[in-house]
Amino acid sequence: MRMKFPIVALALEIITIILFAVFVVYDDGKGHGHGHDPAHTSTVMYFPHIGLNLSMFQDVHVMIFIGFGFLMTFLKRYGFSSVGVNLLLAAFGLQWGLLMQGLWHLEDGKIKVNILKIINADFSTATVLISFGAVLGKTSPVQLLIMTIMEITIFSINEHLVANVLEANDVGASMIIHAFGAYFGLAVARVLYRPGLKNGHDNDGSVYHSDLFAMIGTVFLWMFWPSFNSAIAEPGFTQLTAVINTYLSLAACVLSAYAISSLVEHRGKLDMVHIQNATLAGGVAVGTCADMNIGPFGAMLIGLVAGIVSTLGFKYLTPILASKLGIQDTCGVHNLHGMPGILGGLAGIVAVALGKKKGGDAAMQAAALASSLGFALVGGVVTGLIMKLPFWGQPPDQNCYDDSIYWEVPEEEEEHEESLAHADHSKNKAEV
Amino acid sequence: MRMKFPIVALALEIITIILFAVFVVYDDGKGHGHGHDPAHTSTVMYFPHIGLNLSMFQDVHVMIFIGFGFLMTFLKRYGFSSVGVNLLLAAFGLQWGLLMQGLWHLEDGKIKVNILKIINADFSTATVLISFGAVLGKTSPVQLLIMTIMEITIFSINEHLVANVLEANDVGASMIIHAFGAYFGLAVARVLYRPGLKNGHDNDGSVYHSDLFAMIGTVFLWMFWPSFNSAIAEPGFTQLTAVINTYLSLAACVLSAYAISSLVEHRGKLDMVHIQNATLAGGVAVGTCADMNIGPFGAMLIGLVAGIVSTLGFKYLTPILASKLGIQDTCGVHNLHGMPGILGGLAGIVAVALGKKKGGDAAMQAAALASSLGFALVGGVVTGLIMKLPFWGQPPDQNCYDDSIYWEVPEEEEEHEESLAHADHSKNKAEV
Amino acid sequence: MRMKFPIVALALEIITIILFAVFVVYDDGKGHGHGHDPAHTSTVMYFPHIGLNLSMFQDVHVMIFIGFGFLMTFLKRYGFSSVGVNLLLAAFGLQWGLLMQGLWHLEDGKIKVNILKIINADFSTATVLISFGAVLGKTSPVQLLIMTIMEITIFSINEHLVANVLEANDVGASMIIHAFGAYFGLAVARVLYRPGLKNGHDNDGSVYHSDLFAMIGTVFLWMFWPSFNSAIAEPGFTQLTAVINTYLSLAACVLSAYAISSLVEHRGKLDMVHIQNATLAGGVAVGTCADMNIGPFGAMLIGLVAGIVSTLGFKYLTPILASKLGIQDTCGVHNLHGMPGILGGLAGIVAVALGKKKGGDAAMQAAALASSLGFALVGGVVTGLIMKLPFWGQPPDQNCYDDSIYWEVPEEEEEHEESLAHADHSKNKAEV
Repeated sequence: MRMKFPIVALALEIITIILFAVFVVYDDGKGHGHGHDPAHTSTVMYFPHIGLNLSMFQDVHVMIFIGFGFLMTFLKRYGFSSVGVNLLLAAFGLQWGLLMQGLWHLEDGKIKVNILKIINADFSTATVLISFGAVLGKTSPVQLLIMTIMEITIFSINEHLVANVLEANDVGASMIIHAFGAYFGLAVARVLYRPGLKNGHDNDGSVYHSDLFAMIGTVFLWMFWPSFNSAIAEPGFTQLTAVINTYLSLAACVLSAYAISSLVEHRGKLDMVHIQNATLAGGVAVGTCADMNIGPFGAMLIGLVAGIVSTLGFKYLTPILASKLGIQDTCGVHNLHGMPGILGGLAGIVAVALGKKKGGDAAMQAAALASSLGFALVGGVVTGLIMKLPFWGQPPDQNCYDDSIYWEVPEEEEEHEESLAHADHSKNKAEV
Repeated sequence: MRMKFPIVALALEIITIILFAVFVVYDDGKGHGHGHDPAHTSTVMYFPHIGLNLSMFQDVHVMIFIGFGFLMTFLKRYGFSSVGVNLLLAAFGLQWGLLMQGLWHLEDGKIKVNILKIINADFSTATVLISFGAVLGKTSPVQLLIMTIMEITIFSINEHLVANVLEANDVGASMIIHAFGAYFGLAVARVLYRPGLKNGHDNDGSVYHSDLFAMIGTVFLWMFWPSFNSAIAEPGFTQLTAVINTYLSLAACVLSAYAISSLVEHRGKLDMVHIQNATLAGGVAVGTCADMNIGPFGAMLIGLVAGIVSTLGFKYLTPILASKLGIQDTCGVHNLHGMPGILGGLAGIVAVALGKKKGGDAAMQAAALASSLGFALVGGVVTGLIMKLPFWGQPPDQNCYDDSIYWEVPEEEEEHEESLAHADHSKNKAEV
Repeated sequence: MRMKFPIVALALEIITIILFAVFVVYDDGKGHGHGHDPAHTSTVMYFPHIGLNLSMFQDVHVMIFIGFGFLMTFLKRYGFSSVGVNLLLAAFGLQWGLLMQGLWHLEDGKIKVNILKIINADFSTATVLISFGAVLGKTSPVQLLIMTIMEITIFSINEHLVANVLEANDVGASMIIHAFGAYFGLAVARVLYRPGLKNGHDNDGSVYHSDLFAMIGTVFLWMFWPSFNSAIAEPGFTQLTAVINTYLSLAACVLSAYAISSLVEHRGKLDMVHIQNATLAGGVAVGTCADMNIGPFGAMLIGLVAGIVSTLGFKYLTPILASKLGIQDTCGVHNLHGMPGILGGLAGIVAVALGKKKGGDAAMQAAALASSLGFALVGGVVTGLIMKLPFWGQPPDQNCYDDSIYWEVPEEEEEHEESLAHADHSKNKAEV
């Protein structure tokens, strides 16, 4: 680890900068054909929605860095890695995503970067952060950087296929981000299966404060999801529809997630794992048809069902996946992104079939869902096999879910207890 | 609890979805008469302030879900409920608020939902979250869902009366949200008075980290209050005035809250309860006249006074309310929302009387304040009586302020201490 | 302390309100000469970028209050002061900054406050919050209020000189905020040198959760830096360039900060201090040339170098500054703001010399950097000498880095330990 990680990280960044030097320029707005004077440097501001684009960009940015980062801090001793490695992967991923997505849309051999491009670059990192949730606590930073390169590259191919070849609708990316990221991550987790964790791990759980940190992530994701699902929608009525559908789907989802959590838990109590995750399933599931004319109640129905499916998944399906299929899904991304993502894809097929989207084609929607799942599973297996190579510093079982293998962890709290124990003339070193 | 909560939550959501199916459609902008082609689906984007509306919506959203949610996490063992039940109530409340507010403004028998409507729906939940602060730690989720239905329904009647019948000004809602929410909550708290908590409760206090979590709520509320007070203001100079007045009132309020906190506390120390709450009183108190021409220094004077009143209230009035009037106000909403809300209403009367608002009428302002207080107190008492019915799962005194009655709480920290104690050959079970 | 702090705080606020009453009015947009009807109160909304301005204002606001506030909560027992005193200083500073900056731009003897003015007022507080980081844990609130007045006054002179006399470019304020704030703070820290802290202090360190709280600050600063560096840029292409350059510089900086942190630490581990701070250096260093045509890869190169310089500074330079030069820099602002700020200034000189900014003058850029450093060092020494006067309640060495000298700190956690110790028949009072 000593030299591998710094070399890989620096090398990747330097290669990326060279690629940017060759391929990436600012978008001067001249190619957009809006009829403004192309020499006018203020052109872009004349678009009425530039303020909106920038504010939505910042909202999406918060979801990627605070939302995903803190959502994973629920583990008691893995908060540094959750929020810190999230930052690392997303910071690299957005650069890589800008390149990979841009290669499909070269103008004069250049990638012209603008606000919509950086929103899309942020989006591409979301796939990696979702997959990160599946393998959280069991992978090294170097392995995860490799996953980032592979996953964003494959994502960009599938995205191009879905958006430009199949011309399918997926404005909030239920299929191409959520389902894709989840099944990619689950495939990786399957390949990296650890029999040694079959009976759990002491650090694979939360403490009171770590659950509260995770709620910071949950609530920021929940709040800004309307921006996520509408950021690249067609400006105007369509975009506002995406905001409203997402707002309502998430609200309905909260009620069903709370209800089912209480229903299935011991003595009707609520389970923080469900609240932190299943309340967000409505945002995932409404993604594909967020900008369609499904009616406010249609969005709410989707959210209601997503909250139920997701909570039941956490309760009943995750343990089975681990014990029967060897898929150890740390954050339960199958329940938050996988099943709700498929639900979103199916809802999109139905909505398009019912004529809720002008020009939509239900068969292409179905093909888009199949493509996303196919690329995810095959790509995830291949990526998992590469990550499994023995020289990437994968942590041994006993060091899983523990920051101290990759981070300098402050000794204070434990020292404090030690000195307390010391005051009691007890030297039990196992404690500290 | 086992079955009651899931049934109530699911039933409410399903009823709400049915009501949405009957009443709620997207606002296609055709009814706004701005002279654009009504068939043009992008109509709404042509309003120059749509980007502004969406960014203010997201700011208000953050205040409701992060601001109120984390502000209440100051209690040492009630963080899950604070941020979690806040999410539940607000998610249901915004749906219910959209219906209740919309019923007064039907177009062709339909509620046409747009960005301003969802901002207002978020606003309606603020009343409930304020009242939640008064009864925090002493009520069950089912009781609180009932309070949500009742309070938002009554709020919508009063809001309609104030805005459309009296035509009073209350752009930042000092009267119709803050004073209303506070006195409604205090009335409920009075009805639910618990003699058993007269001498305090072990869990009714903070620990170091819980106070820091609460500061996340405080600071997000503080920062985005300019958006709260200006979100529904008339676009242009009036709206910018509301931003600036709120910005300055809050800044002045911080200084007076800190000064008075230090002045009244033991050896000049600052008290976190004051800092977490009284620094926000300037945002409440400037609400009614935020969009009036009161001058920047006028806004600062209001903030200065609000900070003083609020801090003194926490120090001297809250204990008296509890001991003499039987009003146990967990978060001190009387000091943050009650008195500053009335101060805001009074400032509005004076400002209108001095001609600071074109077309304003001081008598109508006074009537609006009286109406808000009247609806709050009567509505709160009625709601409290319903909540007091014995089958809603109200927690017994000894389980107050404790997440573990409604949540699965991780055992780790306590186990850790237990094993520490164990290592010292001490079996004092009271500790763990 | 008992009376000094409340009197100083209240007196400052009252004086400020009086100055506002004399000097400050709302900007009605009439003086901007955009050719609209000057009587039209909605004038300002007709600017196409008003929504953008307000959303960027809120982003900057988050950086000032959440970003800086939580970044400093890394200390184990100084979180109340970090986030609380940050709020106090920024709330006062923005008022003072509005006055000091406005005095250079009077119209008809008045300061006309608008959104750009309040963004600039927020900016002026950033200098103080940076300097606060250098003296964190070793100064009283009264001392810090004095520093706020002095620093913002001097900052405003230098800013006027740089922007209006030298007409230098510093859109993201690498020189006039970051380098200025850092060297001002370091000069103050030098004057306030404490030999008694030469060998460290028990409380001068983090615990696990305090490091996570600090990451909230880090990530919010990181995310909203594009708004910081572009908020006052020329609307249009130039402003978008500033967003994109900052976005990319920060992303590249993360990779180099992580790589170097791992490289220089024991067994290749990552150090939270580096991650919390050095990942932000790219935002600082790209500030001066954020709106210049340096190319996306140019921005990334700046970020890459900044991350390296900053991390190495934390590892090797900070200990030397403390031991050899008597500069005890609590938060390492020299590494986050000082060196990257100078790097930004130098990059600006080079970029202007290479013609990357129309109308720029490299000599003026160099003069601006020199002026910023000169004002900072001289101003900091003078301010430090005033702060050193013995009647401002500076804490004794043993109470440094400890909230309990200025705050009521909840006793619960310690009581808990005490009772635990008690159960073990140990009365070691040093523990509690």
